[in-house]
Amino acid sequence: MSSTSNDSLARLAAIIERRKPANGGDAQASYVARLLHKGPDAFLKKIGEEATEVVMAAKDVQHGAAPAALVYEVADLWFHSMVALAYFGLAPADVIAELERREGTSGIEEKALRKAHAREQEEAPGESTP
Amino acid sequence: MSSTSNDSLARLAAIIERRKPANGGDAQASYVARLLHKGPDAFLKKIGEEATEVVMAAKDVQHGAAPAALVYEVADLWFHSMVALAYFGLAPADVIAELERREGTSGIEEKALRKAHAREQEEAPGESTP
Amino acid sequence: MSSTSNDSLARLAAIIERRKPANGGDAQASYVARLLHKGPDAFLKKIGEEATEVVMAAKDVQHGAAPAALVYEVADLWFHSMVALAYFGLAPADVIAELERREGTSGIEEKALRKAHAREQEEAPGESTP
Amino acid sequence: MSSTSNDSLARLAAIIERRKPANGGDAQASYVARLLHKGPDAFLKKIGEEATEVVMAAKDVQHGAAPAALVYEVADLWFHSMVALAYFGLAPADVIAELERREGTSGIEEKALRKAHAREQEEAPGESTP
Repeated sequence: MSSTSNDSLARLAAIIERRKPANGGDAQASYVARLLHKGPDAFLKKIGEEATEVVMAAKDVQHGAAPAALVYEVADLWFHSMVALAYFGLAPADVIAELERREGTSGIEEKALRKAHAREQEEAPGESTP
Repeated sequence: MSSTSNDSLARLAAIIERRKPANGGDAQASYVARLLHKGPDAFLKKIGEEATEVVMAAKDVQHGAAPAALVYEVADLWFHSMVALAYFGLAPADVIAELERREGTSGIEEKALRKAHAREQEEAPGESTP
Repeated sequence: MSSTSNDSLARLAAIIERRKPANGGDAQASYVARLLHKGPDAFLKKIGEEATEVVMAAKDVQHGAAPAALVYEVADLWFHSMVALAYFGLAPADVIAELERREGTSGIEEKALRKAHAREQEEAPGESTP
Repeated sequence: MSSTSNDSLARLAAIIERRKPANGGDAQASYVARLLHKGPDAFLKKIGEEATEVVMAAKDVQHGAAPAALVYEVADLWFHSMVALAYFGLAPADVIAELERREGTSGIEEKALRKAHAREQEEAPGESTP
């Protein structure tokens, strides 16, 4: 990843990092500190909830609502993903690096198609023998 | 958002943009073009699925697995979020801007706490009158 | 569906039915009445959240926890599904009937395999032309 | 649970039970046997996916679509929940028993309100000290 990219997310990750109990985060005063203090189930549940809110907002946009609400919900989803990353010692830079690794002319497609292909392989037996 | 931030995601968004049917994306050759061609339910279903995979990977890490798989699944989740954004004319820069808007000394916390507070207000009546 | 089956769920559905605003459900006093009053996003968000809790509980059981917690979370998931059904004028009997319709020697498998097959068909083109 | 209730789900659970590898289920021939053979991540991922499909179908109904599709998706969600229960030695009867346990004049509400109350307690500190 280039040294200039990704700095907004890195700055946000640094704030989340400071909310860890080991770094003095105060679960009484900070929502993020509270999530990190409670542990995985607390922020993973939020990821499931925010993903659902992304889906609902997108369906509303599909049916005519203004797209702004979708931005808001994706921000919530990415934000709680970053709390999960931080908890396990990871950073958004790792995610960006993984996305870049897949990038390129054939990159993204290759990755996704490889998964689709693997699934087809797995499911193929059932196709001919119901 | 500063002009230097966010360029990795912007580059990825540009690739997704080129996969739109209106921009010549070929649903036969490209996984992203196929998702965009199929429409919202196709990529929203993937967001639900990838969020679940993030949760499963995180639970495995919590129980001792290496954290690398979590990076992989968060990348999948963010990637499919970006397909949804693109479909509705939005970009990761909009999400980054929203996250930055919330940032700052009281920013992230304020946002999250405002939601928590709103929920407490909503649910309070039931508390005393089961 | 036989006339004797499904009566526990039917009884629960009848309780939910009485919580509808039109049937005098009191959003101040009842959690279900409050969900029905708030509308789809309120209970759909819960379905996403409870599905995530099912996944987390199952992962804990996979890693050695007692299975009881999984029962609890599936009950939450089915319960909120029933609130959604009620809101849209449907009942668990409709779901049971659909499950029975798929049942039989080849029934369940046929249904699931038909979907798997359809997906393979859809994705096949990408397999050979990355 | 009364002896007459729940027999449709029990019959379906018995079919799933026979698909377990230990009971001779053939992963080549049966979709359920394949899920059970692959293990938790395979069917848990489906639960996340089907919950998302329930949410999408419900949003479509909210925006004017016929409710039938929602029945179909809830059936898929409950069905895959039953595969998870079976894998961990549980049955839909356990879920029905849990739902009945919560039932009654104050039952359902009590359960849900207790959770809401617990959450309010947890989050309360943040309210006054951002």
